[in-house]
Amino acid sequence: MPAPSFCQGLQHAQEMTHFPFSPQLTSSSFLRIGQLSNVDLNEDIRELETELPRQHPNEIPHNEKLLSLKYESLDYDNSENQLFLEEERRINHTAFRTVEIKRWVICAMIGILTGLVACFIDIVVENLAGLKYRVVKGNIDKFTEKGGLSFSLLLWATLNASVVMVGSVIVAFIEPVAAGSGIPQIKCYLNGVKIPHVVRLKTLVIKVCGVILSVVGGLAVGKEGPMIHSGAVIAAGISQGRSTSLKRDFKIFEYFRRDTEKRDFVSAGAAAGVSAAFGAPVGGVLFSLEEGASFWNQFLTWRIFFASMISTFTLNSVLSVYHGNAWDLSSPGLINFGRFDNEKMGYTIQEIPIFIFMGVVGGILGALFNALNYWLTMFRIRYIHRPCLQVVEAMLVAAVTATVGFVMIYCSRDCQPIQGSTVAYPLQLFCADGEYNSMATAFFNTPEKSVVNLFHDPPGSYNPMTLGMFTLMYFFLACWTYGLTVSAGVFIPSLLIGAAWGRLFGISLSYLTKGSIWADPGKYALMGAAAQLGGIVRMTLSLTVIMMEATGNVTYGFPIMLVLMTAKIVGDYFVEGLYDMHIQLQSVPFLHWEAPVTSHSLTAREVMSAPVTCLRRIERVGTVVDILSDTSSNHNGFPVVESNPDASQVAGLRGLILRSQLIVLLKHKVFVERANLSLVQRRLKLKDFRDAYPRFPPIQSIHVSQDERECMIDLSEFMNPSPYTVPQEASLPRVFKLFRALGLRHLVVVDNRNEVVGMVTRKDLARYRLGKEGLEELSLAQT
Amino acid sequence: MPAPSFCQGLQHAQEMTHFPFSPQLTSSSFLRIGQLSNVDLNEDIRELETELPRQHPNEIPHNEKLLSLKYESLDYDNSENQLFLEEERRINHTAFRTVEIKRWVICAMIGILTGLVACFIDIVVENLAGLKYRVVKGNIDKFTEKGGLSFSLLLWATLNASVVMVGSVIVAFIEPVAAGSGIPQIKCYLNGVKIPHVVRLKTLVIKVCGVILSVVGGLAVGKEGPMIHSGAVIAAGISQGRSTSLKRDFKIFEYFRRDTEKRDFVSAGAAAGVSAAFGAPVGGVLFSLEEGASFWNQFLTWRIFFASMISTFTLNSVLSVYHGNAWDLSSPGLINFGRFDNEKMGYTIQEIPIFIFMGVVGGILGALFNALNYWLTMFRIRYIHRPCLQVVEAMLVAAVTATVGFVMIYCSRDCQPIQGSTVAYPLQLFCADGEYNSMATAFFNTPEKSVVNLFHDPPGSYNPMTLGMFTLMYFFLACWTYGLTVSAGVFIPSLLIGAAWGRLFGISLSYLTKGSIWADPGKYALMGAAAQLGGIVRMTLSLTVIMMEATGNVTYGFPIMLVLMTAKIVGDYFVEGLYDMHIQLQSVPFLHWEAPVTSHSLTAREVMSAPVTCLRRIERVGTVVDILSDTSSNHNGFPVVESNPDASQVAGLRGLILRSQLIVLLKHKVFVERANLSLVQRRLKLKDFRDAYPRFPPIQSIHVSQDERECMIDLSEFMNPSPYTVPQEASLPRVFKLFRALGLRHLVVVDNRNEVVGMVTRKDLARYRLGKEGLEELSLAQT
Repeated sequence: MPAPSFCQGLQHAQEMTHFPFSPQLTSSSFLRIGQLSNVDLNEDIRELETELPRQHPNEIPHNEKLLSLKYESLDYDNSENQLFLEEERRINHTAFRTVEIKRWVICAMIGILTGLVACFIDIVVENLAGLKYRVVKGNIDKFTEKGGLSFSLLLWATLNASVVMVGSVIVAFIEPVAAGSGIPQIKCYLNGVKIPHVVRLKTLVIKVCGVILSVVGGLAVGKEGPMIHSGAVIAAGISQGRSTSLKRDFKIFEYFRRDTEKRDFVSAGAAAGVSAAFGAPVGGVLFSLEEGASFWNQFLTWRIFFASMISTFTLNSVLSVYHGNAWDLSSPGLINFGRFDNEKMGYTIQEIPIFIFMGVVGGILGALFNALNYWLTMFRIRYIHRPCLQVVEAMLVAAVTATVGFVMIYCSRDCQPIQGSTVAYPLQLFCADGEYNSMATAFFNTPEKSVVNLFHDPPGSYNPMTLGMFTLMYFFLACWTYGLTVSAGVFIPSLLIGAAWGRLFGISLSYLTKGSIWADPGKYALMGAAAQLGGIVRMTLSLTVIMMEATGNVTYGFPIMLVLMTAKIVGDYFVEGLYDMHIQLQSVPFLHWEAPVTSHSLTAREVMSAPVTCLRRIERVGTVVDILSDTSSNHNGFPVVESNPDASQVAGLRGLILRSQLIVLLKHKVFVERANLSLVQRRLKLKDFRDAYPRFPPIQSIHVSQDERECMIDLSEFMNPSPYTVPQEASLPRVFKLFRALGLRHLVVVDNRNEVVGMVTRKDLARYRLGKEGLEELSLAQT
Repeated sequence: MPAPSFCQGLQHAQEMTHFPFSPQLTSSSFLRIGQLSNVDLNEDIRELETELPRQHPNEIPHNEKLLSLKYESLDYDNSENQLFLEEERRINHTAFRTVEIKRWVICAMIGILTGLVACFIDIVVENLAGLKYRVVKGNIDKFTEKGGLSFSLLLWATLNASVVMVGSVIVAFIEPVAAGSGIPQIKCYLNGVKIPHVVRLKTLVIKVCGVILSVVGGLAVGKEGPMIHSGAVIAAGISQGRSTSLKRDFKIFEYFRRDTEKRDFVSAGAAAGVSAAFGAPVGGVLFSLEEGASFWNQFLTWRIFFASMISTFTLNSVLSVYHGNAWDLSSPGLINFGRFDNEKMGYTIQEIPIFIFMGVVGGILGALFNALNYWLTMFRIRYIHRPCLQVVEAMLVAAVTATVGFVMIYCSRDCQPIQGSTVAYPLQLFCADGEYNSMATAFFNTPEKSVVNLFHDPPGSYNPMTLGMFTLMYFFLACWTYGLTVSAGVFIPSLLIGAAWGRLFGISLSYLTKGSIWADPGKYALMGAAAQLGGIVRMTLSLTVIMMEATGNVTYGFPIMLVLMTAKIVGDYFVEGLYDMHIQLQSVPFLHWEAPVTSHSLTAREVMSAPVTCLRRIERVGTVVDILSDTSSNHNGFPVVESNPDASQVAGLRGLILRSQLIVLLKHKVFVERANLSLVQRRLKLKDFRDAYPRFPPIQSIHVSQDERECMIDLSEFMNPSPYTVPQEASLPRVFKLFRALGLRHLVVVDNRNEVVGMVTRKDLARYRLGKEGLEELSLAQT
């Protein structure tokens, strides 16, 4: 059996050590290559396919300066092989118009379905939570008179814990990827990282049920973040015209069965999710672009906007009908901040420094939140990785949340007149008749309602003490809650914490300035909410627009922007944003917008992986099988070189072929006997590749007989004949820019004679990062 | 004297004719090469530098299917030569932070200055126009009683014509590029086309004065469009830290003296302009992104947003102070559509088909507008190209506008009670006492005010006949006006036409439905305005957001989006958008978002220009001078190949060097004698290149003696050693994507052995376009 042709890499080793810049880096990259060859990729692939039950060792060693090799990349670059080009050339102008119309139809469907899912969540939560609050309220009212409120506490805590238990069990045991808000996962997906199971139907079902149960279970969570994930799953499902989980193929939209198209639709889905969650269609578009799209395309953006608009419109119509005012269209999102009246609540120039100060506070509190959550997450990764432990923790948090709420309500003596207030479930407790307990409105309510109350309740509705205690307790509860194995978002708790301290701040200001009219506590609650949320998630443009759209007016645009910007700058000084932190803790090879500024000293030669396994244009089947089965070949793409270079000719790069393509070729037995090379090998169609997308079988599942191993396979018409390349001298920022802008998965590094010397993939670029002391290099591992 | 080394091209000619796809295209591209060699570029360069007075032949032959070669490209790709890399490597982390802070400071300054310029325009226009209206009103009031209103007409027409004359003279004789709204020019600049003089200080001054005079002169124009151009010029000026016109170099911001950085700031300036014009900071960001940025970068976007916010805030503060309500902050833009009250003016689901119908009407009317303007522009290009003729035409239009207005006011018998109306200059004319002429409010006012009146005047303020006549006349006036040699925008006239027919439509609806409450004429005026503007300019997401922000609420987002989308689809069916049309009439090599869908049949081999003039790594000075002086070398970039390839070695591509770099090298005499090749040639710094940017001298201005011609020049450290390349087999969409996404100027086409076979530049890609009958190829010319 002839050895696979390893090209160039080794010959160049000597050259590399002579390279003038940073020899220590060169040697470290050699070390890395050594590590790579120990990697067992087989297991990973098998696991992905056959879905073995995950094994949980007792303690998982974890290091944040690690990049996991288990994540594959998406390929935003079409493989322009002959099959593809033939199809594209066959399609005429009219057919392209049909494709374009299909794209619009899909976007409309994404919008409608996302809107309907949001409605479903909203209505179910409203009813179940209402039921729960009525039961507990009845119980409390009963026992307030009779004494024995501990029964009420028990009832409340048990109710919460049992609801959360169900929510946690389905997530932990059925689909762990549905945990959390899903925003980090969608960020990764849009960035080009394939997170297993992230856009499956099962994930959607678990996500939706999970978020309903978490909110009803009284956790300090919101139902908005998960909408983004839900929208993305809906988009991925619809655009492919089939569900692998349900084993149904509708034979439509087959043209869109590739990463490029799918990712575009997932962007639209995520935008539609934001749009439904906050009634913020423009914010949704900006969210998708900020997080995902590297290449801004006008048509794509317009489609995304269309999906967003349809989504909020659907939600608005259905909820309006449900609430009985069919033509009113007053519920554009799951949460609406309510109308801020321009005339009453303008701002003046003097207030701007105050807003900036609030941004600073938000940044610091956000950084504190993230730091606490970081330690908690590290603890969870180390010790709470069994599903049953995760369920127990979630139940504990639910019970504690109820208890804290109860104790605070119990101890509070902040009574407000019930007359004229809009509280949904006023709890009288120890207040006089006709009054209600003000602390209870904050705890005894879905967080969305509490936020709106804090924004709009007239001055004097809250006691400063109540707000202070509430901020403190809710801060820690929310921090403990984020990262639990339940499906839930962090937007609303952040807004709630911020609104509480913002209102407190406004009240103090009003007190200090002896009640100047401009210190409206509602306005400060809004700014506080923006500051806190900005300090935690560090989103920029999109968050400003989301806040603007959710408040329904544009007057506060400038102060909100200032607050968010300050919060981001201050927060970034201490610690990363919550989502980025969690992405990093997962060791995901995430590509940021630009290469680290100080990385001009690195060149492609130093960052690339080498040696690269190359294939010849006409290759022995046995060799292909061996290379694919070889556990040391860690790439999913293989450069193709000329078959028989004679001495005078250079064995230059001819193309690039993907593991998935080779597997389809082997599966369909596309090869001819060596003796009959003149025979034409079997023709495949693009459809064969599309049918296998995205779950290509592993090489182990394909049987190749000993005779077949001796056959030859001609890769010419399947390989991409014009892969992107860079010369070895190109600097890292240059390589990064090409890779990021075009959404590549493989970038071949060639020398002056167009011979392959290495390959740059996502992990090679994501490894370099700007740390506190300059450029850092993460190590790679199979975690 | 050795001949310049022409690499590869000719050897490959035979190969090219054997190429299987579309031989007719191949032969046509050969024809094209023939044409190119006749081109006289010298003249162009000389003209750029020495600014000869432009010559105007009597009739300019013009063909829309033409691409001009006179436009150069901007280079969004840094030339990563050794000098650049050494500088970048020298800069440490802290220094990069300083650079980043400088970027923010520049953006703040751009915002402030743009806001101030907008204030200046607003205040001057308000005062001058007020003066004019008072004078004319006084005159009319006087002659209404006495008879002899023809004197008033004469006065009005003369006033208008003389003001417009001044505005037209400065544009036509001093800076013709300041004509029009400037949006097409800025679109081109952001797209990467260098339009001469477009971002000069002189242009800004003429633009600002011109727009004031046009608006005061009573033309059917707005002052909003030109703000975008003004913002862009301000940004270009500030970011470079110097003004070539004023011969002042402040020695700051030198790091930003290259196309990449400058273009980023110009994006911010354009956004700040939109923001100041419409009070739409988010719309401004989206405008810049939609028109310019091919690569979405989070940090850049955030900076652009910052500049936009600062701009609207500055305008708001200054105008608030000017209007005497310092803390009110109620004028976020030059035009504010006024508050649409949510509660009174919601929309219902039944209205949506009506809105869509309005979109169709807007699309048709917009297409008609554009088609008329197209013929008019063709006529102007052919016959009205002398500055004095242009001035006369502008004066004629001004006089006709006044006359039409006067006649319509005179003939109108639509009187409205003056009580409770907000008309600024109520003209009584033949109305009873206490009433005013309703037609006069539309004509006798700045168009901005008329738009707001149409949106907000209570039902019954306008007679349907008045609105109908007004729409008709204003439509033709606006169409005639756009393209005049005055500085003015088309946004406001479009909005005004749309608002007028929209209101008429609303009134008719109300009449037909017997006065259902939902048919509020103001709402329909808004939708009509959106439809008309969308039908003319065909902007998408950004226009939706601009309209949303200008109305100050988000409720109408969905219907506005529907209207704009319908208008765009319907309009595109007939004819292009106004800006795109004018760009095409200027034969600008504009790159759209994607390659034409049916262009997969073309490959790099067919679209590239060949043969390419290559330079050797160590080249004779005489050869370089000859190549640069050679009028047939039409490229501004030259591939660099190995100096002395022996038979066994391939003369592969080593780098790329720009004309501008070579000129700086020659100017600084960076070469050594052939006999002393071992001597080190003079070192240059990046500063030498930056000082010459962007107006590099022409080769003719550099004297090279006969001795110096025999010297040798080593290009190694100045060339970009890792230019982007594509193989010849790459399809046009693939080449296009790479070129567009990275904002390239030159893309080298190489063969399998990395030898240069051709070069792809902007014009090679812009030549292909999707026409009515499929792929069209534009011809290239020196017009």
